[in-house]
Amino acid sequence: MKAGFVGLGNMGQPMARNLLKAGHQLIVYNRTRSRAQALASEGAQVAGNLAEVCVDGLVMTMLSDDGAAEDCVFAPGGILGALPAGGLHVSFSTISTALCARLDGAHQAKGQSFVAAPVFGRPDAAEAARLVVVAAGPAEALGRCRPLLEAIGRKLVVIGPEPANASTFKLAGNFLIVAAVEALGEAFALLRKSQIDPAMFLEIMNGEFFRSPVLENYGKIILEQKYEPAGFQMRLGLKDVRLLLASAEAAGAPMPTASLIRDNLLSGVARGLGHIDWSALARIAAEKAGLGS
Amino acid sequence: MKAGFVGLGNMGQPMARNLLKAGHQLIVYNRTRSRAQALASEGAQVAGNLAEVCVDGLVMTMLSDDGAAEDCVFAPGGILGALPAGGLHVSFSTISTALCARLDGAHQAKGQSFVAAPVFGRPDAAEAARLVVVAAGPAEALGRCRPLLEAIGRKLVVIGPEPANASTFKLAGNFLIVAAVEALGEAFALLRKSQIDPAMFLEIMNGEFFRSPVLENYGKIILEQKYEPAGFQMRLGLKDVRLLLASAEAAGAPMPTASLIRDNLLSGVARGLGHIDWSALARIAAEKAGLGS
Amino acid sequence: MKAGFVGLGNMGQPMARNLLKAGHQLIVYNRTRSRAQALASEGAQVAGNLAEVCVDGLVMTMLSDDGAAEDCVFAPGGILGALPAGGLHVSFSTISTALCARLDGAHQAKGQSFVAAPVFGRPDAAEAARLVVVAAGPAEALGRCRPLLEAIGRKLVVIGPEPANASTFKLAGNFLIVAAVEALGEAFALLRKSQIDPAMFLEIMNGEFFRSPVLENYGKIILEQKYEPAGFQMRLGLKDVRLLLASAEAAGAPMPTASLIRDNLLSGVARGLGHIDWSALARIAAEKAGLGS
Amino acid sequence: MKAGFVGLGNMGQPMARNLLKAGHQLIVYNRTRSRAQALASEGAQVAGNLAEVCVDGLVMTMLSDDGAAEDCVFAPGGILGALPAGGLHVSFSTISTALCARLDGAHQAKGQSFVAAPVFGRPDAAEAARLVVVAAGPAEALGRCRPLLEAIGRKLVVIGPEPANASTFKLAGNFLIVAAVEALGEAFALLRKSQIDPAMFLEIMNGEFFRSPVLENYGKIILEQKYEPAGFQMRLGLKDVRLLLASAEAAGAPMPTASLIRDNLLSGVARGLGHIDWSALARIAAEKAGLGS
Repeated sequence: MKAGFVGLGNMGQPMARNLLKAGHQLIVYNRTRSRAQALASEGAQVAGNLAEVCVDGLVMTMLSDDGAAEDCVFAPGGILGALPAGGLHVSFSTISTALCARLDGAHQAKGQSFVAAPVFGRPDAAEAARLVVVAAGPAEALGRCRPLLEAIGRKLVVIGPEPANASTFKLAGNFLIVAAVEALGEAFALLRKSQIDPAMFLEIMNGEFFRSPVLENYGKIILEQKYEPAGFQMRLGLKDVRLLLASAEAAGAPMPTASLIRDNLLSGVARGLGHIDWSALARIAAEKAGLGS
Repeated sequence: MKAGFVGLGNMGQPMARNLLKAGHQLIVYNRTRSRAQALASEGAQVAGNLAEVCVDGLVMTMLSDDGAAEDCVFAPGGILGALPAGGLHVSFSTISTALCARLDGAHQAKGQSFVAAPVFGRPDAAEAARLVVVAAGPAEALGRCRPLLEAIGRKLVVIGPEPANASTFKLAGNFLIVAAVEALGEAFALLRKSQIDPAMFLEIMNGEFFRSPVLENYGKIILEQKYEPAGFQMRLGLKDVRLLLASAEAAGAPMPTASLIRDNLLSGVARGLGHIDWSALARIAAEKAGLGS
Repeated sequence: MKAGFVGLGNMGQPMARNLLKAGHQLIVYNRTRSRAQALASEGAQVAGNLAEVCVDGLVMTMLSDDGAAEDCVFAPGGILGALPAGGLHVSFSTISTALCARLDGAHQAKGQSFVAAPVFGRPDAAEAARLVVVAAGPAEALGRCRPLLEAIGRKLVVIGPEPANASTFKLAGNFLIVAAVEALGEAFALLRKSQIDPAMFLEIMNGEFFRSPVLENYGKIILEQKYEPAGFQMRLGLKDVRLLLASAEAAGAPMPTASLIRDNLLSGVARGLGHIDWSALARIAAEKAGLGS
Repeated sequence: MKAGFVGLGNMGQPMARNLLKAGHQLIVYNRTRSRAQALASEGAQVAGNLAEVCVDGLVMTMLSDDGAAEDCVFAPGGILGALPAGGLHVSFSTISTALCARLDGAHQAKGQSFVAAPVFGRPDAAEAARLVVVAAGPAEALGRCRPLLEAIGRKLVVIGPEPANASTFKLAGNFLIVAAVEALGEAFALLRKSQIDPAMFLEIMNGEFFRSPVLENYGKIILEQKYEPAGFQMRLGLKDVRLLLASAEAAGAPMPTASLIRDNLLSGVARGLGHIDWSALARIAAEKAGLGS
């Protein structure tokens, strides 16, 4: 297939690379052009502006937050205006439920289609084409972009016709993960202050009960305090929990654990830890207990 | 081996039964005598008082809370006075870290030994001898009761010589579980209010990421709202989180997620739900969101 | 003075009336025109659109939320375009710190001035011209609108040249009030469940220690459970706490008490209580304790 | 009157001094005898043990926590055994609702009376005989000790016949105060990070709305960061909030704001701040926001 790809950050670049490897032809665009050039040697065509990535009528975006996604679609010269009627916009970004609904409405009003397909996985999963893609949108549009969605991940899950639901789903899924990280962090602080080895605790609790790679992976990072380089930065984690709380407020569902985690992530960011891994929630829990980081 | 067993509730009875099945000779005692009689037909000898269960110099206890455990050991005619010097008390109960330390000290002062061996698992696991036993105490004492500990579970983990640590470990482990339940409950409330199927969400999140029987089992209970009969009652869950918070305060480790869960469990108990399963935390989250239970 | 006034709700209407009483000439505008007509008999001129209220170069706005304020300024035919260069926009609305900053920038870019002057007080205080006005903006602009600001309240406080600060100040002030309400609600629930009379408690605690009309007034509402008609609706309280949390996140300051209150207000709104007074936080605390409302 | 007085700490010593000044004859006892000697020059008789302070059949206690109060009453040679039948024990200490009920029951069983009379006020108020005394107990016993209760404070409030209620009342009252302190601390952190002067904020909010000496006094301490010498130590504040939460759990009333404050106080104590004033909650809020203390 021929398609455009916008946003070549930590996640976008390996995703685009995997699309190229799978034989698709990409026109790529990134605000910082050098990141686009890096893909040229792998067969990508580099666009000079957003209009050029829309010429084939199918454009994918992987942007860091609502602001970037809004700009890229709604600003003059943006995707909304450049995409031809009948065109399709596939958004991989983790954006708010509200923006997702707004994008969907705007594209529909132009006779275009919109698919929200946020991905689960950290940069290493993106490189290995091992992401899990959670997609929602009209069946016809999903059918059209399916080969692209399948090329970037190990699993594609279609959850229905409503793009905004993919956003809520992704944010709720991330919440389960960060809630497990927070709980580990609090438990480890107690154990350390009680002179009990957290590594033994994790091995037993995960080995005998949870048997979960999520706990294993994050537990390892926390035990080794290897928060850098970040797989997922605390400031992005804060953004995701903020978006979750906004979705939850709009839906009318209080999520007190998410509120608590938000405050801890915010404290981390306020104290200069925004760039380290969000599992440093455990470091914040330890410091509250008077433990050195 | 010949030994005494005190406390034949939902958990104690199947544990004692499995000890009998494994060929051990038990003298059993329960405040409500009828529950002891039930085991007589399976070979147990029924004691009329606590002194009788101590005659063989090894007594196990499985009691519901600190108060019951204190009574049974410290009250006149209790285990502390009845157990001969050199005797061993093995406590399976989930009791506070502080009481654990106090029991250890009192037994040592009498020339007796104390092993704390709290168990993970619900009544069905107790019946199937599939508990996980987390034991701490002096090596000699652990060696002595090992055949008993092995008879009741699928796994015995020895975490060190300090009995109080077994209590902290157990409470911290329970916390990981209840934190996962609370997070599921909050996420499900959001999903239901967003018209997204929580069953699909759980299947994907657990199937692709967590792969954890904990999430699977509790998720199922919550999705089916099958909070009765309770595997573990909300009022006992409240007790465990209270004990955890007491341990954490003594150790100097704030656990805000545990505080939040405590308040939700307390609300459940205050509203008459103390007898249903503690996973009804999800029901409380749903009601806060204006959803019928 | 001659000036325009936009937004004639529960607060705006009595404020405009007091401006008329003080001898100022107003051109008023409200989306629902009937509320504007009501003021015609008191001497106001009724505008047919936003452009007309801007003709005198000074326009005041009192709108319910960010969305309404944005529309009224930025939409085609809005204040930003209609106000002449050198004109002044005085915003009484409680809006977000971020929107305040954005309005300030937009007006400056047009050679216009912007003063943020949010008010403290409920509708009865607005009617009695007893509001407290917290204003921020350039000294020259403040000097110009001072007679208007003085006509609507019992006290005008100027906090500096930065309009956005007035918004943060207002939101932080509201937070002190709602935090006192939440604390009263939690304490009353405990007292009621302990068979201690909350009225006696309030009388002693406020009479001997706090001596605060805030506690007296809200305490009375709560004791009498007179949540209707609302002085300040729960859904507006939720909005204010949301804006506070947004300001706090932007500033890098976690406010866990505000997060907790947000979740309680959200639960109230989700359960159909959005229209009653925000002091019904006490009702939510009581219900959590198993007390009938 | 002739009476015994036990516990001569920061609060007990000035209280005893004021009883002497009012013309009462005291036999005083303190574990650290030197603090008792200090009162000898002011006319007190110094007792060598607890039995001696009970000889007049009326003994007052002002102890720091449940443990000290329990020891002093229940230990061999303690008040319970030494006080004659018909004797009266007046407890000024802030102790748990549960211990209060237990003391009441034990004294009744011995034909003795018990009055709980916890006091509000910091050491300076104790010295100035400006405490507020909240008393509960049988009418006859209250009548008997009234002259003593009146000698130590500016106000005596009798709340009923049930001693345990005085404890709940005191703990709930303290909660209102600490909740106000926490809210101030969170608001000040936001203001400081927004470059808004917290002193101006406090002056306006308290001057125009709250008009409360509680906010004025604590606001001043926080603005000046004068947490030493402590009027009320953080570790004692933690104790009080723990007792409150225990009362609230027993009564079936969740108090999430109290839980949150408990965790903040615990963090302070865990980080070595247990000896400074509990209003250093504001310091903890500031540090979470990345502000130096």
